[in-house]
Amino acid sequence: MAKLKKIFTNILRLLALAATVVAIVFMVTSHDSAQVLNLTFTVKYSNTPVFKYFVIAEAIAGGYIVISILLSFKSLFWRLLVILDMVTTVLLTSSISAALAIAQVGKKGNTHAGWLPVCEQVPDFCDQVTIALIAGLAAAIIYFVLLLCSLYVVLSPIFVVTP
Amino acid sequence: MAKLKKIFTNILRLLALAATVVAIVFMVTSHDSAQVLNLTFTVKYSNTPVFKYFVIAEAIAGGYIVISILLSFKSLFWRLLVILDMVTTVLLTSSISAALAIAQVGKKGNTHAGWLPVCEQVPDFCDQVTIALIAGLAAAIIYFVLLLCSLYVVLSPIFVVTP
Repeated sequence: MAKLKKIFTNILRLLALAATVVAIVFMVTSHDSAQVLNLTFTVKYSNTPVFKYFVIAEAIAGGYIVISILLSFKSLFWRLLVILDMVTTVLLTSSISAALAIAQVGKKGNTHAGWLPVCEQVPDFCDQVTIALIAGLAAAIIYFVLLLCSLYVVLSPIFVVTP
Repeated sequence: MAKLKKIFTNILRLLALAATVVAIVFMVTSHDSAQVLNLTFTVKYSNTPVFKYFVIAEAIAGGYIVISILLSFKSLFWRLLVILDMVTTVLLTSSISAALAIAQVGKKGNTHAGWLPVCEQVPDFCDQVTIALIAGLAAAIIYFVLLLCSLYVVLSPIFVVTP
């Protein structure tokens, strides 16, 4: 049972790792150019500080996931693993929430602030960012489920004595 | 020791609850008007979908915190409490991250996207939103610490048997 649980959680970790890698690759390689009044503008992810934060946070989370997979083979570290799972969940949640907030403005604009939507001008950029965000969202959801599973096992009355 | 821990965690919960209330009140009451070409524009939080999400998420988190405080008096529910603490942490993290992302654009703008900063035009609005965001950030940090403490107690070898 414990072995089956370890295999299941590690499959979830590998899926989340793959999602963070996809998110980083698609975000970092996203670029497009738009022509306004005979001037060509190039758009890339690093123009937006929040997208840079997204890439850094996904990379740190990806690093934590690799450490988690390695630690999961040593049952001694199971407590550290739950803490790492929690920190990774918070990091992934923060990065995807911030990036989605900016993407919403990029897609819809905000007429009250005078911010125009940009996706019509740079569709290729927006398409790539969308894939990166879907991958980032998938990673966050997978880790939320994983943390719930970890907590369920830790809190399960079979294993613990009520404090 | 268990009683002391309960008092400490409930003080943290009350502080986080106060922070979410401050965040909601300051965000909801934030408004200002700017004059552009003899036209007066009124700015309020509900013009920005992400700020509406912030208010809703802080309200739900605040509700969870109230439920957590009530549940903490029944030791039967301590498992549910850890799960609730986790969900609240994720909610608070998501709402503050998204709101900070938009606030950054409001303050600094984004020249690449053609989005101008708006805080110089509506300083009162920005000041109130800043207070709301500081309160939201405080709530998220308090809950992160609280969840770490909860997990530490749950994972402590005094209380649990290694699975």
